[in-house]
Amino acid sequence: MIRLECDYACGAHPAVLERLIATNGEHTPGYGMDEHCQNAARMLKDLCQRPDADVHFLVGGTQTNMTLITAALRPYQGVVSADSGHIATHETGAIEATGHKVLTIPSPDGKISAQQIDALCQAHLQDPTAEHTVQPGMVYISNPTELGTIYTLAELEAIRAVTAKYDLPLFLDGARLGCALAAEDNDVTLADLARLCDAFYVGGTKMGALFGEALVLTHPALKRDFRYLIKQRGGMLAKGRLLGVQFEALLENGLYFDIGRHSVGLAMQLKRAFAAKGYPTLVDSPTNQQFPIVPNALLERLAGVCTWSLQAKPDSEHTAIRFCTSWATTQAEIDQIIALL
Amino acid sequence: MIRLECDYACGAHPAVLERLIATNGEHTPGYGMDEHCQNAARMLKDLCQRPDADVHFLVGGTQTNMTLITAALRPYQGVVSADSGHIATHETGAIEATGHKVLTIPSPDGKISAQQIDALCQAHLQDPTAEHTVQPGMVYISNPTELGTIYTLAELEAIRAVTAKYDLPLFLDGARLGCALAAEDNDVTLADLARLCDAFYVGGTKMGALFGEALVLTHPALKRDFRYLIKQRGGMLAKGRLLGVQFEALLENGLYFDIGRHSVGLAMQLKRAFAAKGYPTLVDSPTNQQFPIVPNALLERLAGVCTWSLQAKPDSEHTAIRFCTSWATTQAEIDQIIALL
Amino acid sequence: MIRLECDYACGAHPAVLERLIATNGEHTPGYGMDEHCQNAARMLKDLCQRPDADVHFLVGGTQTNMTLITAALRPYQGVVSADSGHIATHETGAIEATGHKVLTIPSPDGKISAQQIDALCQAHLQDPTAEHTVQPGMVYISNPTELGTIYTLAELEAIRAVTAKYDLPLFLDGARLGCALAAEDNDVTLADLARLCDAFYVGGTKMGALFGEALVLTHPALKRDFRYLIKQRGGMLAKGRLLGVQFEALLENGLYFDIGRHSVGLAMQLKRAFAAKGYPTLVDSPTNQQFPIVPNALLERLAGVCTWSLQAKPDSEHTAIRFCTSWATTQAEIDQIIALL
Amino acid sequence: MIRLECDYACGAHPAVLERLIATNGEHTPGYGMDEHCQNAARMLKDLCQRPDADVHFLVGGTQTNMTLITAALRPYQGVVSADSGHIATHETGAIEATGHKVLTIPSPDGKISAQQIDALCQAHLQDPTAEHTVQPGMVYISNPTELGTIYTLAELEAIRAVTAKYDLPLFLDGARLGCALAAEDNDVTLADLARLCDAFYVGGTKMGALFGEALVLTHPALKRDFRYLIKQRGGMLAKGRLLGVQFEALLENGLYFDIGRHSVGLAMQLKRAFAAKGYPTLVDSPTNQQFPIVPNALLERLAGVCTWSLQAKPDSEHTAIRFCTSWATTQAEIDQIIALL
Repeated sequence: MIRLECDYACGAHPAVLERLIATNGEHTPGYGMDEHCQNAARMLKDLCQRPDADVHFLVGGTQTNMTLITAALRPYQGVVSADSGHIATHETGAIEATGHKVLTIPSPDGKISAQQIDALCQAHLQDPTAEHTVQPGMVYISNPTELGTIYTLAELEAIRAVTAKYDLPLFLDGARLGCALAAEDNDVTLADLARLCDAFYVGGTKMGALFGEALVLTHPALKRDFRYLIKQRGGMLAKGRLLGVQFEALLENGLYFDIGRHSVGLAMQLKRAFAAKGYPTLVDSPTNQQFPIVPNALLERLAGVCTWSLQAKPDSEHTAIRFCTSWATTQAEIDQIIALL
Repeated sequence: MIRLECDYACGAHPAVLERLIATNGEHTPGYGMDEHCQNAARMLKDLCQRPDADVHFLVGGTQTNMTLITAALRPYQGVVSADSGHIATHETGAIEATGHKVLTIPSPDGKISAQQIDALCQAHLQDPTAEHTVQPGMVYISNPTELGTIYTLAELEAIRAVTAKYDLPLFLDGARLGCALAAEDNDVTLADLARLCDAFYVGGTKMGALFGEALVLTHPALKRDFRYLIKQRGGMLAKGRLLGVQFEALLENGLYFDIGRHSVGLAMQLKRAFAAKGYPTLVDSPTNQQFPIVPNALLERLAGVCTWSLQAKPDSEHTAIRFCTSWATTQAEIDQIIALL
Repeated sequence: MIRLECDYACGAHPAVLERLIATNGEHTPGYGMDEHCQNAARMLKDLCQRPDADVHFLVGGTQTNMTLITAALRPYQGVVSADSGHIATHETGAIEATGHKVLTIPSPDGKISAQQIDALCQAHLQDPTAEHTVQPGMVYISNPTELGTIYTLAELEAIRAVTAKYDLPLFLDGARLGCALAAEDNDVTLADLARLCDAFYVGGTKMGALFGEALVLTHPALKRDFRYLIKQRGGMLAKGRLLGVQFEALLENGLYFDIGRHSVGLAMQLKRAFAAKGYPTLVDSPTNQQFPIVPNALLERLAGVCTWSLQAKPDSEHTAIRFCTSWATTQAEIDQIIALL
Repeated sequence: MIRLECDYACGAHPAVLERLIATNGEHTPGYGMDEHCQNAARMLKDLCQRPDADVHFLVGGTQTNMTLITAALRPYQGVVSADSGHIATHETGAIEATGHKVLTIPSPDGKISAQQIDALCQAHLQDPTAEHTVQPGMVYISNPTELGTIYTLAELEAIRAVTAKYDLPLFLDGARLGCALAAEDNDVTLADLARLCDAFYVGGTKMGALFGEALVLTHPALKRDFRYLIKQRGGMLAKGRLLGVQFEALLENGLYFDIGRHSVGLAMQLKRAFAAKGYPTLVDSPTNQQFPIVPNALLERLAGVCTWSLQAKPDSEHTAIRFCTSWATTQAEIDQIIALL
C-alpha cells in the first residue's frame, strides 16, 4: 500500500536516524542547553543571515504556535489568521486555551493579503466601541498554507509593510517550509523570511525528522525570557539535544532542501497526471499537498493501491481528496499511481 | 567524566534504540492511533491488572502533569501537593497557567500524609468563607518523590481512603517510577497503583527512553475526551508511534524494572560508601537519587571525576549535593567514585 | 436632547431608587447572603415556577456570561453562538480569556435555529479528526437578540430538543428580557424559559435598575459551587443586598414587565412612523431596539433633537441607525421625533 | 445589635446617597465615559499631584486586583505578596485563574519588607534553573494590610527602591486606604503613594460608597489599553457614572478622609479599652480593624450586644476576634461595648 494520506506516517529520514544512533551514547546537559542545539541554531542563523536571531527547538507544531502566540500577545489581543489557518481549525482551541481569540479572515486558498489585514485593522481603529472588541495583536500566516499554496516575496513584503504600519508581530508557520522553498515558482529564501517575519518556524516533523520544529525569533520583544514560556507550556524536552541532533542532520549538506525538492517533484508528477486526465483541482497547489477532485468510481480503484485523506465532498458523485508526498515517497510509487490513472 | 548530575543526560537504552531503528521504515497512522501504541497500552494494562484503564502516551512530565490536572479540576479548584512537589516548584507555573492554584503542604522529605490531606480538607469545609478560597479538588503525589523517598503501600492506602472520603481524584507522578518499584523496602506494585490512584504515569524519559510518559487513567471522569485535551495542550505527537514503540521495548521482558534495579543498585552502593565515611545525608533516599552532605574540600576532589547537581548549602563548609544514577551508569563508574572516597 | 443611543444612559427607575434609599441604613450580611437577595430570588423562582432553581445576582452582563460559560464548559469545549452574539462581538474576548472558543453560526437577524445547531453538532461528530477541533459544549442565545428580534416558543422548544439530543446546556442571555416578554407577538413566558433553558438571566441594567442581572440556574451541574466561580471571576458584590433590593422593587407589582411594555410600546410607535414614511429597516425588530435605514439628510435634521447609535452604512447616501427606548423615554419625546419626520 | 463584623454591612454614607439621588435623572454616556468620572478622576489626580496619572473606576476589589495584575505580568511571571495578602487567601484563586502564581512571603503582621523582596528576587536570579520556576514579575502590598497594620513612608520608600532595582511594578491595594491615612502614626500621603507606586487603588466599598474602587495608574506600561482589560474581565459598569458620582461625593470637602478618621477614632477607643482590661491583641493595628484575644466567657456576654468575625483560636479558652468600625459606627455603640467590658 502506498501511503499518501499524510506526511508524518513514516519514521525519520535515514540520515537523521543515523545521527541519532551515532550520538546516542553521549552525555549532554538537558533542556536544549547542549552543543548540538547550539550548533544547529548556528547553522540556521547562518542560512537566515541573522546572527542576532534566537533559535529554539520545540517538539511539535501546535506547541510551537501556542507558545509563540502567548509570548506575542497582551491578554485582550487576538491573532489574525486565515479562516483555514491551522490555529483556527485543527488545534482544539489551543490558542483560546491560552486566552486569545483567533480573528479570522476568509480565504479560499489558505492565503491572506496585506489588503485584508489592513482592512481588519482599519475597521478596529475606526470602531467607536473598539475597546469592547478584541484588538488585533499579531498576524499568523502559514507557508505553504494548509491548502498547499505559497506566498510570493512581493506578497510577504506587502504583508510586512502592513504589519509594520500597525506594529503587529508577523509570525509564519513553516510546518512544511521545505516544500514551499522547493516549489517551482518560489522566490522566497530563508533569509527573506528572517528579514520579513518577527518569528517563523522551520518544520522538521513533516520534513524528515522524527519530530521537531526550529523556531526563529528576530524581534527582541519575542526573545525575552522565551525559555520560561517553553517550559511553562510543556514544550521543553528533557533530552533536548535530540532536537539539535536532528536539525544538524537536516541542515548539513542541504538535506532539508533536498527533501523538499524530492517531495514536491513527485507531487508535481501527480498533479500533471491528474490534470492530463481532466480532473479539476480544489486548489492550485505547487507543493507536496495535492487536492484533485475525482469521480467516486476512481476512488474505488485507488483504494487497494494507495491511501489519501478526504478533503471535501463537492457533490454526490465526486470527492476532493488530498495526497501528501514526503521524503519516504518513491518514484516507483508515483509511477504506479499514474499508471493506474 | 562520570555524569551523575541527572538521569536524562544520555540517549536511549540500547534495546529502546534498536526498536526505533527496526520500526523506522513503517508507515502508521499518526497521533498515537497506531498498533505500537495499542500494544504498549495493552501490556501496561496487563501489568496493572486494569483492562478497563485508558493509557495515553505523552512526550514529557510537565505536559503530562498539566494535561491531567486540567482534566481533573473545575476552575475554582486547586491541586494539593507537597511544597517540594514538581508542579509546585519546577514547572514555571504550568499549573497556574491553566488557571489553578497549587495548594501546598509542608514536607521535609517530599511525602505528604493522609492526615495532612484530611486536615487541609477539614479546614476548608469548616471555613465559613470557604467560597472565598480555593477548593481542594485533587491530590498530587510523586513516587519516588523529588527527594527520592517512596510511599509504602499502607501510606498509599491511607491517602486513598482520605481522597475517597472527600471525592478527590488521586494522581501519582511516576517520572522515576521504576526506581520506586526497585527500592529495597518497596511493597507497592503497578497493580496497587492502578487500584489506588485515579491516574498515574509511568515515566519513560528518566528510565531509558528517549522521551515519553505513559499515563494510566482509571477514573471514568478523567478518561472522557482526554485526547482533545492532549491535542489542545500541545502534547499530541504527530508520529505518535515513537512513544508506543519505546514502551513496547521497555515493557517487554521486564526491561523497565531491570533499569530500575540497575539504577537503584548502584545508588545504594554510593549511599553506603558515603555513610561509611560518616557523611550525613539530606534525606534518607532508597532510590536512584542520593543527597550526601559533604565537606567542600571533597567536592574539589570529585570535581575532575564526576558531576552532580547542587541541592542545598547547609553551612559555609558543607554542601548537599545530588547524585543521580541511571541505566547508563556503570559499575566501574561507581567503583571509581567509591575508591576516591 | 432626547437620548435614544442606548438604554443605559439614565439612572434607576424611581421605584428602584426609592427602595435603595429606604434600605440604605440597614446592616446586612455581605456577598448576597442577605434577606433581600433571598426574597428577590424567591419571587423570581415563583415567576419561573421553578422552586428548585438557584438564583444568583451579578452586577453586569459580560460578567454573568463569562461566569456561567466557565461553569458549563470543559477546557476543550466551545460555546455555540450567533455570529452577532454579544459574547462573539462585544465582550473584548472575555470568553476566550477564560479559555474557550466561541463557535459562531451565521445569522442575519441575530437568531440561530435548531437546524443550524444540529448541523454544527453533526459535522463535529462525523469529523474523523474531531479531537483536533473544538467540541461544541453548550449553546448561547440572546432574547431579544442584539438585533432586537425574539424567539418564538416553537423555536425555543426546537432548540431545546436539539441541545438535549447532544447533551448541551442551553443558556439564554436576557439582558433586555423584559422587552422580549413585552413584544406584541411574544408567546414565551418566564416559566417557559425556566423549563427550556439550563440557565438564563433576567437583565436589570437595561430594564430600570442601576445595575444587576438575575441569573437563574435550573441544571444541577451548573448549580454546583457556583458562588466560588462568582467570587473568582470578580462578580461577587460586597454589599450584595443592593442587587436583591433592586430586584425586589422590579419584581413586585410587575414593574419589570411594565417597563418592558412601556419601552416596547414607544419603540413600536417609532417603528410605524418610519415605515409610514417608506424607510426600510435593517431588521424587523418587535422590541425596544429599532434599526431604520434613513437618508443621511434626515440624520442632519435629527441631530439637534435626539441621539442614536450607528449600526451600518449600507451605501454612501444612507445610514442604518439604532434607536433604543427605555423606562426613561417619554411619550412626549417620541411624539416630537415623529412630528419631525 | 451593634454590627462590627465587617465594614461593608451598611449602605452608602448619606452624602454619597444624596449625590446618587440628585443625579439619577441625568442621561450620560455609558461605561465610565461621562463627566462625573472625569471630574472625580481629576480630583483624585489633584490629590495625588499626578496630572499624568490615569484613573479608572471599578466595582470591587477582587476585580480591581485581578485586572491590574493581568495588565502587569507576562504569562510566566508571578506576583509577590504577603502570605496573608488578600490575593493569596480570599479571592478564590482569581489570580491563578488569570494564569499567574502568587509568590508568597511569610508575614505575621501582614506586611512585607524590602529585604524580603530583595531576598526573593536574588534567590530567583541566582537559581541556575530559574527558567523552570515562576519569575517574580511585580509586588503586591496592601495598606492597611489584612491585619490592620500600615506601612511607614520609610518602609514604602525602601520597597520602592528594591522594586525599581528589579524593574518590578509595585501595586498597593487600598481597599481601606482611608483608614491607613487616618492612623495616628501615619506619615504617608496620597501624593507619596502616587510617587512610589506604579498602581494603587483608593477603596470606596469599605469607605462609605455603595461600591467602587478608584484605580490610579502612574506607570505608562500599565496605562496602555487598560479599558480593554476592564471590559474583558467583566469590570466595566454600563452605568459607569455611578462610580464617578460616588467618588465626587467622597472626595469633595475631604469626606473620604473624615470617614477614615471617624472609623479609626472609634477603633482606637475599642483598642484602648481592651488593652486596659489586659486582653492581648493578635496584632497591633492602628486602623479600623482590631483583633483582641478574649476569654470565651467574654464572647458570651458580647454575643447579645454586638457582632464580630472569628479570626483565630489560640487555645481552647480564648478566641481572637476581629472588630471592624466604619462610617456607620456610632460613638454610642462604642460606648456601650466599652461599658460592657
